[in-house]
Amino acid sequence: MITDITSPANPVFKSLKALADKKARREQQLFLAEGLRVCTEALATGHVPHTLIFAADAEDHPLTGALVTATLARRGTVLRATRDLLHRLTGKDNPGAVAAAYPIPDTGLAGIDRSAARLWVVAENLKDPGNLGTMLRTCDAVGAGGVILLDQSCDPFSLEAVRASMGGLFTRQVAQASGADFLAWLRSGPGSLVGAALSGSTVDYRSHPFTDPTFLFMGNEQSGLPAPYADACDALVKLPMKGTADSLNVAVATAVLLYAALAQFEPV
Amino acid sequence: MITDITSPANPVFKSLKALADKKARREQQLFLAEGLRVCTEALATGHVPHTLIFAADAEDHPLTGALVTATLARRGTVLRATRDLLHRLTGKDNPGAVAAAYPIPDTGLAGIDRSAARLWVVAENLKDPGNLGTMLRTCDAVGAGGVILLDQSCDPFSLEAVRASMGGLFTRQVAQASGADFLAWLRSGPGSLVGAALSGSTVDYRSHPFTDPTFLFMGNEQSGLPAPYADACDALVKLPMKGTADSLNVAVATAVLLYAALAQFEPV
Repeated sequence: MITDITSPANPVFKSLKALADKKARREQQLFLAEGLRVCTEALATGHVPHTLIFAADAEDHPLTGALVTATLARRGTVLRATRDLLHRLTGKDNPGAVAAAYPIPDTGLAGIDRSAARLWVVAENLKDPGNLGTMLRTCDAVGAGGVILLDQSCDPFSLEAVRASMGGLFTRQVAQASGADFLAWLRSGPGSLVGAALSGSTVDYRSHPFTDPTFLFMGNEQSGLPAPYADACDALVKLPMKGTADSLNVAVATAVLLYAALAQFEPV
Repeated sequence: MITDITSPANPVFKSLKALADKKARREQQLFLAEGLRVCTEALATGHVPHTLIFAADAEDHPLTGALVTATLARRGTVLRATRDLLHRLTGKDNPGAVAAAYPIPDTGLAGIDRSAARLWVVAENLKDPGNLGTMLRTCDAVGAGGVILLDQSCDPFSLEAVRASMGGLFTRQVAQASGADFLAWLRSGPGSLVGAALSGSTVDYRSHPFTDPTFLFMGNEQSGLPAPYADACDALVKLPMKGTADSLNVAVATAVLLYAALAQFEPV
């Protein structure tokens, strides 16, 4: 059944809107994604909305219809609303035709199948959800398995992270762990830990022979990779820095390194 | 002379705070940068604040002193304030020790010396100031000359762009032009226009022989490079996309391409 809503006071709408806050996400065990394209790609990889809200003017779009059908088939909740309510939900001036709440997946390390990809990203104390989302988007592009978040990293299920991932959150794996647990897990199987570093025993990233699987270890936006983590790496690589700045945006550095590794794995 | 201020109603403070708005930036012909490090790097490249505001608790820091001295020597305005006022100015929970207003430089194409660098970035209809700032930061890292903004691109002097550039706005050149004016200027001198494209007569970016100077042409975040611009390119290159997404973040794609060009110019 599709429910028409006209007011932001509708309790289901309020519970969706609450998902902007981490506390509500944890309580409801749901996160919000938006946009017909992202939600359609999510559906294609088996992610059915728990709750779907769509703009009444987009009801005839076949992709909207497919999402409505899939949600109802799983006994999910479907709301028909105005664009204004979609705007209120997402904060976007030009909101997409749909938004949907999805179950937050398990993010334990045990869920990571390291043999599923040649490349993985490990991020330590990553603070900016936009950076995280961008990294997931790049992981999708290069076929990397996903991002393992260590220590006090940002929440991968915030609206900003989901948005920047452009669907990457649905196609890539995300794990959350302490540094100690991650290192123990890493050494329990195959894998090379390659840290991005600005100093120390680093080699130019083009000289590093990337092996399968490689875990690319990226440090915090401000402070980079702490020494104990750098010491735990099998290799440290650096990017040439020719200007006055001493570092790159972390999502940018991740992408350059991932594409360099991909270029080695799959030469032209 | 240093002026102590204690209230956000101070008229100079208000004029600084107004620089968050594009209209005020245009009227005052000033933009705001923040942080001791960025302002110090700006000073090192000859950018003296028009107006400097610093946190009283940071007055004894030698870098603060150098900024105060330089600003006063140019008959600029210097304000001593509380961290709370810095917080109100920048919106940051942990504001830096200083912020400063700088004259907006001329952004005409005539100011671009194409022989100054092997690589330049051209961005068409770039909307996100964070992406622009990140691109300037990467330009600094690879020694690219700067960014030429075409058509309805975002303002390079917004707080968000300046912040993401991490000083790159001071060390790189920025120009603003219409597409037609840019193409006429480009063809008036040496330079290869290389478009980043997802379709058309594209080659893998690793197979393209980058020449000096290369103008790397990046399209809008949503829609990519429009066909007339793609047709004007000397070559189109693409990045491998192995996942479900069909594009990368534009600042990420720019960085991968810039580093690939740098790798050709300067092999390991």
